[in-house]
Amino acid sequence: MMRRLYFDRDSARGVAGTYEWLVDEVKELGEALNARHRTELRKEFADVIAWLASLANLTGIDLEAATVEKYDNRCPKCGHLPCECKP
Amino acid sequence: MMRRLYFDRDSARGVAGTYEWLVDEVKELGEALNARHRTELRKEFADVIAWLASLANLTGIDLEAATVEKYDNRCPKCGHLPCECKP
Repeated sequence: MMRRLYFDRDSARGVAGTYEWLVDEVKELGEALNARHRTELRKEFADVIAWLASLANLTGIDLEAATVEKYDNRCPKCGHLPCECKP
Repeated sequence: MMRRLYFDRDSARGVAGTYEWLVDEVKELGEALNARHRTELRKEFADVIAWLASLANLTGIDLEAATVEKYDNRCPKCGHLPCECKP
């Protein structure tokens, strides 16, 4: 969806500029965590994942495939579900 | 999946500590963008979305629902697909 919505604009901005936006959105998410406004918090989570998807599109990474590859119903460190790593 | 894997550990760490981890993972993603190692880059994208999911679980936010609520096949600013906002 983010590719259909924003790929042309993301391409024009480039990887570095898109990463900077992602960092800004993560900061805004941090502020929304402190404020605890639920509606605002939902929007900030949406923005972070949106910009993460834009960055993934620009770099040719399939976010879902990459995530399932690393976290496939088991912790990549200890191999268990749930994770049994020592704290 | 992240809830099943890590919710107990995430709960013990808390929102603030989990957010700090997310910020660190975003930094590592930035470094992987520069290095351009594809395998490493895929892992860093996976880590960012994993920690974002952990934070969403802790705050009771449904990441997918929040994202579809804001970006529902149209740009939330201009209302178009693809986005037609002025640059």
